[in-house]
Amino acid sequence: MVVYLVGAGPGDPDLITLKAVKALENADVVVYDRLANEEILKHAKSAEMIYVGKKAGEHYKKQPEINEILIEQGLKHDVVVRLKGGDPFVFGRGGEEMLALFEKGIDVEFIPGVTSAIGVPTSAGLPVTHRGVATSLTVVTGHEDPTKDNKQVKWDFKADTIIILMGVGLLEENTREIMKYKDPETPVCVIEKGTSPDQRIITGTLKNITENHINTPALVVIGHVVDIYKNALKIRGEDINEG
Amino acid sequence: MVVYLVGAGPGDPDLITLKAVKALENADVVVYDRLANEEILKHAKSAEMIYVGKKAGEHYKKQPEINEILIEQGLKHDVVVRLKGGDPFVFGRGGEEMLALFEKGIDVEFIPGVTSAIGVPTSAGLPVTHRGVATSLTVVTGHEDPTKDNKQVKWDFKADTIIILMGVGLLEENTREIMKYKDPETPVCVIEKGTSPDQRIITGTLKNITENHINTPALVVIGHVVDIYKNALKIRGEDINEG
Ligand SMILES: C[S@@+](CC[C@H](N)C(=O)[O-])C[C@H]1O[C@@H](n2cnc3c(N)ncnc32)[C@H](O)[C@@H]1O
Ligand SMILES: C[S@@+](CC[C@H](N)C(=O)[O-])C[C@H]1O[C@@H](n2cnc3c(N)ncnc32)[C@H](O)[C@@H]1O
Repeated sequence: MVVYLVGAGPGDPDLITLKAVKALENADVVVYDRLANEEILKHAKSAEMIYVGKKAGEHYKKQPEINEILIEQGLKHDVVVRLKGGDPFVFGRGGEEMLALFEKGIDVEFIPGVTSAIGVPTSAGLPVTHRGVATSLTVVTGHEDPTKDNKQVKWDFKADTIIILMGVGLLEENTREIMKYKDPETPVCVIEKGTSPDQRIITGTLKNITENHINTPALVVIGHVVDIYKNALKIRGEDINEG
Repeated sequence: MVVYLVGAGPGDPDLITLKAVKALENADVVVYDRLANEEILKHAKSAEMIYVGKKAGEHYKKQPEINEILIEQGLKHDVVVRLKGGDPFVFGRGGEEMLALFEKGIDVEFIPGVTSAIGVPTSAGLPVTHRGVATSLTVVTGHEDPTKDNKQVKWDFKADTIIILMGVGLLEENTREIMKYKDPETPVCVIEKGTSPDQRIITGTLKNITENHINTPALVVIGHVVDIYKNALKIRGEDINEG
């Protein structure tokens, strides 16, 4: 009667931790969302698989329903693995699941994963901090409508690097907000399908990045660390994709 | 002739990725700093080991010297692993090493790790984001002297959660700065030696957290996500360590 909240990493199936692999190997049930790569599920040789992510054209499970499934499975089995992309607590709603399980007296253990927010830029050779360039970084959701009242995200972050997750849909609105506080020429890098064979990287500026068509999942890195990445490409004589 | 910049994770030897393990297994040489747990080095069965971290009472290697060692090893061997705690690009000086190696025509590959900044709170059951509570998080170094001129870190971060690495030495100076912008009653959580058997967690507020003696390595989480953590302990009937 323990539910493991487990991070699966950003996509590349080898970017899962040994601890997550061991939890999957011991699992009676695995409850999972849409994963970047389902190869990871192979570690759970003997487990029952419950998919709770989106399905094309179908109603998908809302958070309270997922909580109910976790409680039901947690009461029934010795080892339940709740598998999430990246890290379970970075925009993963892991906190809500934890509280719901604790309320029912079910034990929860936490296995962090490589979050896409950091692991995707790192894999691409884009340092999210750099001496003299970035001594702070902010990770933020781009999902909140910046025109709604009572909005929680104000875009006046003082951090040197800003990393937006779920940032494709409202990128135009959000870059417009950010340009109130940062130079429109601030370099921007978009990484699509990071750590996968289909990874695509586009660079630009706050002003012009939205001229590109961006496929999901993607994240957006804003700040002068992007210059370090471009500088590295230049030293190697590689092309820079300016959209 | 490739140098892998590899993240070792936050301490628990099982929080290393499969990809990092494979790189270590194939390494001719491993160049490493002080690690939270040297058990990780066992994966490098046949490699030469070069320690470049601090040694008690001894002169330790400065960054340019480490770059030189990496270049020398990179030119000499097929597979060099440069192993760093957490993620190589989160205050790890990986960017400088990458540029130095590229300048000499040496290939570099990047293997992200679970950064302590996120992995340590997650392992402890402290969600760094939470619906309605935190839609953004900032990771910052606490190492910069806030009284120096030309300081790069201004503490006026707008993110809901602030996570300070290298934050023990100047915690008093830095919390004083932060209190110019945030309520002194904002909850704070310090996690010492995260993911290790000696992990210790202390909670308090911006105003009183510095009354505690804190051992390193430790990180500091500031924001109302700490209430979620405390709430979870309360539901479970566990003690909260208020210092
Ligand atoms: C709901 S959030 C969950 C994040 C996850 N918990 C984590 O720590 O990575 C999903 C967002 O993560 C980002 N993301 C996840 N995987 C990605 C990848 N392989 N490449 C680029 N962005 C990715 C995208 O911004 C996507 O919208
Ligand atoms: C020089 S920084 C390197 C960070 C590393 N690259 C990472 O991604 O975790 C070292 C700082 O990380 C934090 N840290 C590293 N391991 C930790 C642990 N096990 N528990 C708490 N804090 C840790 C401490 O704040 C420490 O001062």
